Amino acid sequence: MDIGAQLKSMLTFWDRLETAQQEKLKKSAVVRRFQRGETFHRGSETCSGLYIVMSGQVRVYLLSESGREITLYRLFERDLCLFSASCIMSDVQFDVYVQAEKDTEAILIPTAVYEWLMDHSIHVARYTNSLMASRFSDVMWLLEQIMFKSFDSRLSAFLMEQSIIEQSADLYLTHEEIARHLGTAREVVTRMLNYFQSEGLVSLARGVIHLKDTDRLDQLAK
Amino acid sequence: MDIGAQLKSMLTFWDRLETAQQEKLKKSAVVRRFQRGETFHRGSETCSGLYIVMSGQVRVYLLSESGREITLYRLFERDLCLFSASCIMSDVQFDVYVQAEKDTEAILIPTAVYEWLMDHSIHVARYTNSLMASRFSDVMWLLEQIMFKSFDSRLSAFLMEQSIIEQSADLYLTHEEIARHLGTAREVVTRMLNYFQSEGLVSLARGVIHLKDTDRLDQLAK
Repeated sequence: MDIGAQLKSMLTFWDRLETAQQEKLKKSAVVRRFQRGETFHRGSETCSGLYIVMSGQVRVYLLSESGREITLYRLFERDLCLFSASCIMSDVQFDVYVQAEKDTEAILIPTAVYEWLMDHSIHVARYTNSLMASRFSDVMWLLEQIMFKSFDSRLSAFLMEQSIIEQSADLYLTHEEIARHLGTAREVVTRMLNYFQSEGLVSLARGVIHLKDTDRLDQLAK
Repeated sequence: MDIGAQLKSMLTFWDRLETAQQEKLKKSAVVRRFQRGETFHRGSETCSGLYIVMSGQVRVYLLSESGREITLYRLFERDLCLFSASCIMSDVQFDVYVQAEKDTEAILIPTAVYEWLMDHSIHVARYTNSLMASRFSDVMWLLEQIMFKSFDSRLSAFLMEQSIIEQSADLYLTHEEIARHLGTAREVVTRMLNYFQSEGLVSLARGVIHLKDTDRLDQLAK
């Protein structure tokens, strides 16, 4: 599939663009490949542009000055990564980091081209609005979890989400990795996982967490 | 000042609207008054429309099922309250509450009219974008505070912000009110304020917190 066909299949506003706008997009868009573990957008250091995830998996996270992390949301096939182009939106006053969690292929629309489109097509402007609202909703969900839920509930929700993403009851994640996703310390994760094990919710082995009682994990997550 | 002149002075996109669009706005906008303490937008219960704060002060907060609160951001004169019109944005999947913190006068643009404007003016669509990005930035700031800062730092930042808003070193706030802003329990606030008092940062009397050492509070907030 050529890049025009890919853009058409990915961008809901494609058919509402003028021909010249479509041409400009096609000419400027490029395919980028990232290896699992690669952080390809680093806050204000880079203003890469808008990524469309073609395959793979990406996480968007916050990084504190002292090196602590928390995952804000994940992006999968067909998702757009708006905040890697946030430099064109002067009112976006925060920095996010974007990392490939699996080998990832993405189409990159350069910053200047996307900005030009937003200025010239009300459809792109409105689409950008929806996109931002979706990400905003993800972050608000996270904030509610952090403020109003206990850690056992958040950890259950994370394990269940991970199990759905991986389509497996065996999760190959270190306690350190989970701590980075949830913005806490490794010890906190280890303590709670040990408690989960004693309650028969999971079983722990070297490098793998097996989800034993997904019904109860699901309940705990709610 | 008539409502047309007020809208012109408040809305940066006013001059870029067509005459018909300006007329529609003028005809549909109404002035609303809220008393200090009144919660005039309650999540998905209401879809009031877009408020423009003319005078007074407003806080936008989250409310948990169990009644806990946390303040997301404040709005002052000339600020627009976007999320009271969030029902027009299907991708906004969270509920906020809006409360007058002081007697407040606001212009209300009905939901249907604002939606129509977003659909017909790229300037309004782009403006809405910036507005959402600003609020998103506020919430991201809050999230960073919660995740990466200690409570003494957050409390100092809140006291200093409050002192700037009130232009006074005497804050007439109960510990319960501060707890609601910061999303914590009253006891936690009381304990930390007592500690601040013992360190000479504040002095506490019935119903009032006096900021004694704003330099050190400022430092602590950073």
